[in-house]
Amino acid sequence: MNDVAPAGRHEILIVSEEVCEKLVGRAEAFKAVEGVFAAMARGEARNFPVVREALGHADALYGFKSGFDRAGMALGVKSGGYWPGNSARGLTNHQSSVLLFDPDTGRLKAVVGGNYLTAVRTAAASAVSIAHLARQDAKVLGIVGAGHQSAFQLRAAAEQRDFEKVVAWNRSPEKLESLVTVAGELGLSFEGVTLQELGRQADVIITITSSFEPLLRGEWIKPGAHIACMGTDTKGKQEVDAGLVATAGVFTDEVAQSITIGEAQHAVAAGLIEEADITPLGDVINGVHAGRKGDDEITLFDGTGVGLQDLAVADAAVRKASVEGRATLVRL
Amino acid sequence: MNDVAPAGRHEILIVSEEVCEKLVGRAEAFKAVEGVFAAMARGEARNFPVVREALGHADALYGFKSGFDRAGMALGVKSGGYWPGNSARGLTNHQSSVLLFDPDTGRLKAVVGGNYLTAVRTAAASAVSIAHLARQDAKVLGIVGAGHQSAFQLRAAAEQRDFEKVVAWNRSPEKLESLVTVAGELGLSFEGVTLQELGRQADVIITITSSFEPLLRGEWIKPGAHIACMGTDTKGKQEVDAGLVATAGVFTDEVAQSITIGEAQHAVAAGLIEEADITPLGDVINGVHAGRKGDDEITLFDGTGVGLQDLAVADAAVRKASVEGRATLVRL
Repeated sequence: MNDVAPAGRHEILIVSEEVCEKLVGRAEAFKAVEGVFAAMARGEARNFPVVREALGHADALYGFKSGFDRAGMALGVKSGGYWPGNSARGLTNHQSSVLLFDPDTGRLKAVVGGNYLTAVRTAAASAVSIAHLARQDAKVLGIVGAGHQSAFQLRAAAEQRDFEKVVAWNRSPEKLESLVTVAGELGLSFEGVTLQELGRQADVIITITSSFEPLLRGEWIKPGAHIACMGTDTKGKQEVDAGLVATAGVFTDEVAQSITIGEAQHAVAAGLIEEADITPLGDVINGVHAGRKGDDEITLFDGTGVGLQDLAVADAAVRKASVEGRATLVRL
Repeated sequence: MNDVAPAGRHEILIVSEEVCEKLVGRAEAFKAVEGVFAAMARGEARNFPVVREALGHADALYGFKSGFDRAGMALGVKSGGYWPGNSARGLTNHQSSVLLFDPDTGRLKAVVGGNYLTAVRTAAASAVSIAHLARQDAKVLGIVGAGHQSAFQLRAAAEQRDFEKVVAWNRSPEKLESLVTVAGELGLSFEGVTLQELGRQADVIITITSSFEPLLRGEWIKPGAHIACMGTDTKGKQEVDAGLVATAGVFTDEVAQSITIGEAQHAVAAGLIEEADITPLGDVINGVHAGRKGDDEITLFDGTGVGLQDLAVADAAVRKASVEGRATLVRL
């Protein structure tokens, strides 16, 4: 943008939450996330160190995820965090904004609302893992957790295979209602189940909780199932038992995060697996790794969440908003 | 801003470079920087870990400085970096943008142009050190380095004491012209000198270079001089010899940075001083430390540059622009 204009003239694009919701659908998010996972595995895109700080005010956790995708020429940062008191004010507890910079000059290029994009990029990550790792004949989709993100996860996952039924569990069963509604919209039957029953029925499972103890045990899971663990993004969090991770074929967005703050942290700490046992999902996308080993292997995607996903969907929003004249141009 | 509005309605303020230049003068920057140094020393303001990465594109260095000032309720990040090819495009090589967030909700509050503010906040830091540490009877001001920042430094320093003369040195003497002009505007006589002569004459010295070797030697410096080292912000950089740091009364913006990436890194590495020998300038501002010990002590301010300085001047810009109706309001 205006790289050769005098230093005093610098215009940035503002892309609102509302415009992101209208322009970045599941298809756009899938394509953006799949592309950046592939670029990461080729070494063409890199996440920078994450900053995460307890604020000491409003019980907030605040920080930044940043990176540079040389293939997509997306440079930037997602900043924001978790403000637990927001819901009482009618605001989302998770607050995110994405800033994109021109990689050629360092100038701020765009400010993009990040709340909707965070949900849609996280759902896209598990959907990409299902597309590349789940059995083609998967019929039953299991969802563990019924928070804000779960409906996004369900909608994105449902498009990847010819599912017939959703089985779901949540600590407070009354919160399953939103998933019942979405399943109905998608023409899928729905059953609220125990965790053990969920494991018995599901061909594909998405865990999207903030649990600090294993919810699913390895012996409950069907042979050939695919599990996308999307909730574990911090030291100490855990959604499935370490033995399950040890026996599954393990894939991830970023290996360095998987072994330290992802679902694989516990199996690695227990000495059950090591870093070399974990495959970047991008290697499968790029055809470097074959993915699932036969119909009976349990595959597990450890979705830790990386800044490059945020930049990829924000970049898609900015490109589309620019073409369609939906971005606000402001002088900086 | 609009904390109780529905989640869909979120407006941010854009404060342009031009508005920052008009509204944040040296007095506002001095007040903001002095205030945040004091808050840091009281433990009420904290810088978060710095992210700094070589991009692998356009020879750029890119990163973030962030923090939270609980006293001033300023939360945010300065992002940007150094793009050496910019000057050939008619742009500033250093590119910065400051983002401020609402500490109560985490929502993005303002986007502020950071190029002018970076220069004025860096000059304010050395000016604050001169105000609190230099001898009252200082007459000769020495400037080492004649780059973009040096004119800002000269103007801010000149206001702190009743100076009569400027002595300056630059590796390429022809670049001293801009300082000659500024000195003339300020009614000060000017002399281009050797580094040794600069040390012999100057009562206050500002070093503002990107040197990786000592330029000033301790034996050249007048007793009672005050030196503000403003150029060293990376491992390996150095502007004065370690022996001078060892004998001076050493003050800094942030001790943790001073001993690792600041001017004091070399004296600490050589075992000449230790962390406890370095005083936060905020302690002097708060009256907790007396500052200069008598007329003959050489005092040295190690200005490493912290994110909280950027947030403080950006916050001042946003407040003033809001009151005067100079910010652009955009829906996010």
